[in-house]
Amino acid sequence: MKNLLSLLASLSLAAMSQSTVAAPGIDGGPFVLVIHGGAGVVSKEEMTPEKEKAQLAALTESLQAGHAILKTNGTSLDAVIAAIKVLEDSPLFNAGRGAVLNGDGVVELDAAIMDGATRKAGAVAAVKHVRNPIEAARLVMDKSRHVMLVGEGAEAFAKGQGIDMMPQSYFITEHRKKQLERIQNEQKQTPKPQSIWQKERTTDLVGTVGAVALDGQGNLAAGTSTGGIANKKPGRVGDSPIIGAGTYANNATCAVSATGHGEYFIRAVVAHDISALIEYKGMSLNEAADLVVKKELVEFGGEGGVIGVDSKGNVAMPFNSQGMYRGYVREDGKPFVAIY
Amino acid sequence: MKNLLSLLASLSLAAMSQSTVAAPGIDGGPFVLVIHGGAGVVSKEEMTPEKEKAQLAALTESLQAGHAILKTNGTSLDAVIAAIKVLEDSPLFNAGRGAVLNGDGVVELDAAIMDGATRKAGAVAAVKHVRNPIEAARLVMDKSRHVMLVGEGAEAFAKGQGIDMMPQSYFITEHRKKQLERIQNEQKQTPKPQSIWQKERTTDLVGTVGAVALDGQGNLAAGTSTGGIANKKPGRVGDSPIIGAGTYANNATCAVSATGHGEYFIRAVVAHDISALIEYKGMSLNEAADLVVKKELVEFGGEGGVIGVDSKGNVAMPFNSQGMYRGYVREDGKPFVAIY
Repeated sequence: MKNLLSLLASLSLAAMSQSTVAAPGIDGGPFVLVIHGGAGVVSKEEMTPEKEKAQLAALTESLQAGHAILKTNGTSLDAVIAAIKVLEDSPLFNAGRGAVLNGDGVVELDAAIMDGATRKAGAVAAVKHVRNPIEAARLVMDKSRHVMLVGEGAEAFAKGQGIDMMPQSYFITEHRKKQLERIQNEQKQTPKPQSIWQKERTTDLVGTVGAVALDGQGNLAAGTSTGGIANKKPGRVGDSPIIGAGTYANNATCAVSATGHGEYFIRAVVAHDISALIEYKGMSLNEAADLVVKKELVEFGGEGGVIGVDSKGNVAMPFNSQGMYRGYVREDGKPFVAIY
Repeated sequence: MKNLLSLLASLSLAAMSQSTVAAPGIDGGPFVLVIHGGAGVVSKEEMTPEKEKAQLAALTESLQAGHAILKTNGTSLDAVIAAIKVLEDSPLFNAGRGAVLNGDGVVELDAAIMDGATRKAGAVAAVKHVRNPIEAARLVMDKSRHVMLVGEGAEAFAKGQGIDMMPQSYFITEHRKKQLERIQNEQKQTPKPQSIWQKERTTDLVGTVGAVALDGQGNLAAGTSTGGIANKKPGRVGDSPIIGAGTYANNATCAVSATGHGEYFIRAVVAHDISALIEYKGMSLNEAADLVVKKELVEFGGEGGVIGVDSKGNVAMPFNSQGMYRGYVREDGKPFVAIY
């Protein structure tokens, strides 16, 4: 609570000092960072005012971390990674520490990053010990000749690159243990066939994190990090680390990070579909993102949302769920955060 | 050679008996199956006339397996899987038995299937013991609530579903051992930094297999299966099992299976891009596939090709490499196969 108050105080100061004019990036271009902390809303039993405040504070901290980079002429890639790392390190989101547990009670993490200028990309999936999967994804992009590494191969690569590795105990929280227990008890009481595309409980989808950014040089980037779906089968990979589905960036169109029921988002190739509507149909980012999230995904049965930014700095944050943890910050450093 | 001769004889008979009129599917609609056995062409040192004949015979056998299903009112999904299984079981292609080895000398297999009618999909990646990864992908689609499973989780699921599991020795051929030795010796003599997106030798890209089909009911399906790139890092996943990149099917547009330097195909979201050009720009399948493969991928640096079919039975098989093992068969049962 003390942290939260000091954070809010510092935000007010930032807001006052930059309240009227949006300072441009050092290179003269506008810049903006947009983040999400997952679609769907935690159920009332599980939510407290304190927890909500803490989540909004973490989102604000994430925006500040990325803004600090963008305002000093840093790249959208660096800003996206800095913003995501804050949320991976927070136990309040379904990524990194605090991620959901799979059916075996194990944390398995996925992440991807994409550079809109070069359309280079990196992704990891089903890693169990990488503290910040988004950093591992960046290293796959920068230091390997591959785009995607999974499982033990991804872990060996990450370890070889010298990034922080953690025991499973670092990632697992009491909250997630109870969540898995509840889900598995429900499943025992009313077993559902594994063969149907059943709806996950909205509250069990919450918390994937992501960021998209436009930097002062006009370059876009997108990143996403997640623990996936609670009680997932070991080895399950959702849309987050799939380039084109949960993560996509292209300077010619937009940068997108998605959150929601990943299976549907993969099948609908959500992030690339938004880009294609802009490129081939001449839609605006907002029109394209709304069409995909509020119409196509709804008809398809896919609950969730996306964040997007285009090369002019337009921002879209549509969702078809009850809420989506989200926020953005522009040149003036005034963070906007919201859930509903 | 005896098998080949009897095969060619039976083909001639089939051709004679159905030479003039294309018999429609039982439901009255046209049907067609298109397959590939990889882009790029094996180097002259490694190729013999016998090997080429055997490869063309295997492609023909694959077409016949799928055709037998389509002509008896089977589904495009079943035809795609039957066609791919023939090539997975053949040691001559980079899928299933005979797949390339990763940097540790281990076979790791990826596959995906997608149903154009429902846009349901299934995929596995980095599996080491599944005899027919395309069957495992189908089971993920039909018998789990997920789209993609990787590594040990995917293996455990496949085993639980009762499909054939094989030791590594089943998959590894002498040819692939020598190939890996050669690549690793070359790398030792002229080490290349791991951080650049170096070109793979075209000959080391050859052999991913895939199939797309339109059935008599008007439904499209696409499938792809691969061992990836020789000397890949353990855990590397290419475009084949990525829905939207190497595999995509949508009755409203087309079914596509890709082959080539997977990293570029992921970054360009190749299969979905072709679909989007049809859906949003009103291009024909041929126009869209040509634009993506012969222009965009060439500019991007991505060597390879795709096969595609649309709901009217139009077929596209563009490639920007020296060759692509490919073929198709329509209602008349006359297989067409080609390399260059």
